[in-house]
Amino acid sequence: MKLLEGAVDHGGSLGRAWALFPNASRPFVDLSTGINPHSYPLFDLPATTLSRLPEAARTRDLIEIAASTYGAPSPANVAAAPGTQILLPRVASLIAPGKALVLGPTYAEHARAAVIAGHEVTEVRDFAALADADLAIIVNPNNPDGRIIERDRLLALAAGLRAKGGLLVVDEAFMDVGPREHSLAGDVGQGGIVVLRSFGKFFGLAGLRLGFALSDAATVERLEAQFGPWAVAGPALEYGILALADIGWQDAMRASLTKASARLDALFGRFGVLVAGGTPLFRYLRLADAADLFSALGEHGILLRHFADRPHVLRAGLPGSELEWQRLESALVGWAARREDKSKGSKQ
Amino acid sequence: MKLLEGAVDHGGSLGRAWALFPNASRPFVDLSTGINPHSYPLFDLPATTLSRLPEAARTRDLIEIAASTYGAPSPANVAAAPGTQILLPRVASLIAPGKALVLGPTYAEHARAAVIAGHEVTEVRDFAALADADLAIIVNPNNPDGRIIERDRLLALAAGLRAKGGLLVVDEAFMDVGPREHSLAGDVGQGGIVVLRSFGKFFGLAGLRLGFALSDAATVERLEAQFGPWAVAGPALEYGILALADIGWQDAMRASLTKASARLDALFGRFGVLVAGGTPLFRYLRLADAADLFSALGEHGILLRHFADRPHVLRAGLPGSELEWQRLESALVGWAARREDKSKGSKQ
Repeated sequence: MKLLEGAVDHGGSLGRAWALFPNASRPFVDLSTGINPHSYPLFDLPATTLSRLPEAARTRDLIEIAASTYGAPSPANVAAAPGTQILLPRVASLIAPGKALVLGPTYAEHARAAVIAGHEVTEVRDFAALADADLAIIVNPNNPDGRIIERDRLLALAAGLRAKGGLLVVDEAFMDVGPREHSLAGDVGQGGIVVLRSFGKFFGLAGLRLGFALSDAATVERLEAQFGPWAVAGPALEYGILALADIGWQDAMRASLTKASARLDALFGRFGVLVAGGTPLFRYLRLADAADLFSALGEHGILLRHFADRPHVLRAGLPGSELEWQRLESALVGWAARREDKSKGSKQ
Repeated sequence: MKLLEGAVDHGGSLGRAWALFPNASRPFVDLSTGINPHSYPLFDLPATTLSRLPEAARTRDLIEIAASTYGAPSPANVAAAPGTQILLPRVASLIAPGKALVLGPTYAEHARAAVIAGHEVTEVRDFAALADADLAIIVNPNNPDGRIIERDRLLALAAGLRAKGGLLVVDEAFMDVGPREHSLAGDVGQGGIVVLRSFGKFFGLAGLRLGFALSDAATVERLEAQFGPWAVAGPALEYGILALADIGWQDAMRASLTKASARLDALFGRFGVLVAGGTPLFRYLRLADAADLFSALGEHGILLRHFADRPHVLRAGLPGSELEWQRLESALVGWAARREDKSKGSKQ
């Protein structure tokens, strides 16, 4: 392979961090993703989850629990896959090549997947413009700015697209910590809608690779045919079944993440950094000297996510431990002092 | 989802076994697959293989080791995927819908994947007939009968297909224990060839989901684009890197499997069951009363693989422990005695 890293940066790569900040304090505090640093508790897996083919009955269990937890009409409306990423080109291929509109700026892989599927792809900034699409793609809440599109507007858009054989894709990767009343998970039976849900982000288990597509039953069957039997690995099945059923953990985690994100906003606020949006799993920062903050923190071994095409914004995930909070705070103190020096220097 | 189990049986499902043989001795001795019962030694994984996104650098390591162990021209000729199964429709979609010919009887998923990709699919029995294909698919060594097509014949076929823009797919799922001089892994740089390699069968880790497509660099890039970043889960990366590099284990395992398969042939031979082919990971049995043997062993909790459309053949994987060997032997003793009684009965 000729690795994909020349392509889009998505955060979450320590290899990239080492290359960018070779002299930084280690270990890195990786705030470059929106992955929960507080993973669902790890447990020992029976050896057979690795040695045997995944059992069809376990896959059925996973699908049933996912349908219930996400609020899909029924298990027939849920397809499981080894990560949401691998679903994107398959979902974009559900309709014939046409006009794909992505509500941006957002997660870059949607546009890439739609191009692979043969669509003519445009990023639009205005929700109303999506009505012209054959394939309309929305991340809700949006990554990185946390923008929410309300459910009734989404349903109206879906109805329009459905009437002309189009498709609305709503990527709800962060809806576990979003305003769930705006999820379309319960509406996928209407047809013309695919909702994507990610397991790894909220449950902090991104290495397992587990994601879901929710849609009408016929579309779910088409997607499952593409993946064939044994699409989800043994370890992902076992973690998925346990964690998705654990509503107590989920509710407590939502509360705890909301608290942590408020703490992060307060911390950035102390240093004059505006938090302009986000979700409880990541914050969206807007500041004139974003590149400077990115570098200053990076040199202290703290990784934020920057965006090559948007020099005035950054995304910050949540620190996982008190030590990580302290390292972030002291790096911000250092950055603010340097900034003050510079500003004095420029006044003299 | 509406589960795929109504569809093709592939062996390896204990759920199916429980339904078929509710009164059988437990635990089942599962000889219904060609998966090595002697897994690569399990080891503890760092929590980060589950919690973090898979690192691009680790994927590169895996690809490099796979290229070397499988004998691909270079890492640029290798794409990694979460299992070979999920590769099949993507590989079949590499060329425009046309005439797909599968050399059969063989693993049923190839025909299914080619249909999904829009091809008109026919199973042929004669290697020479494949020359008429746009997409020719061969499992080598074949599953279930172990048939080998020699490398020079494959290369001649590939040249013919390539000349007309066609594609030869060689599924080498069992080539780790096959006559490796007939592998096309080293020839994929010529173009018009995709070789599939499975990690889970030989290494006995089918639950991890790891497979590879070897092809020319441009085709590998096309496949990788379909899977996107993070296609292989953290645990599969770590096991793949260690196990594929462990040539000592591989050589010793090949010798040990060859010995075990000879022992299995001798055991079946004692009861007059003809072993008509196979590989060191499974044996292909031909007998008039195959259905009777399947049921008799199943009632003793020993699962073979039967084929709905071929009532006179069975496939048997290798027992994993001495206890499993003994259970197989005593079940065969019981079957032979019953068969003798029946035969006496019918003579009286």
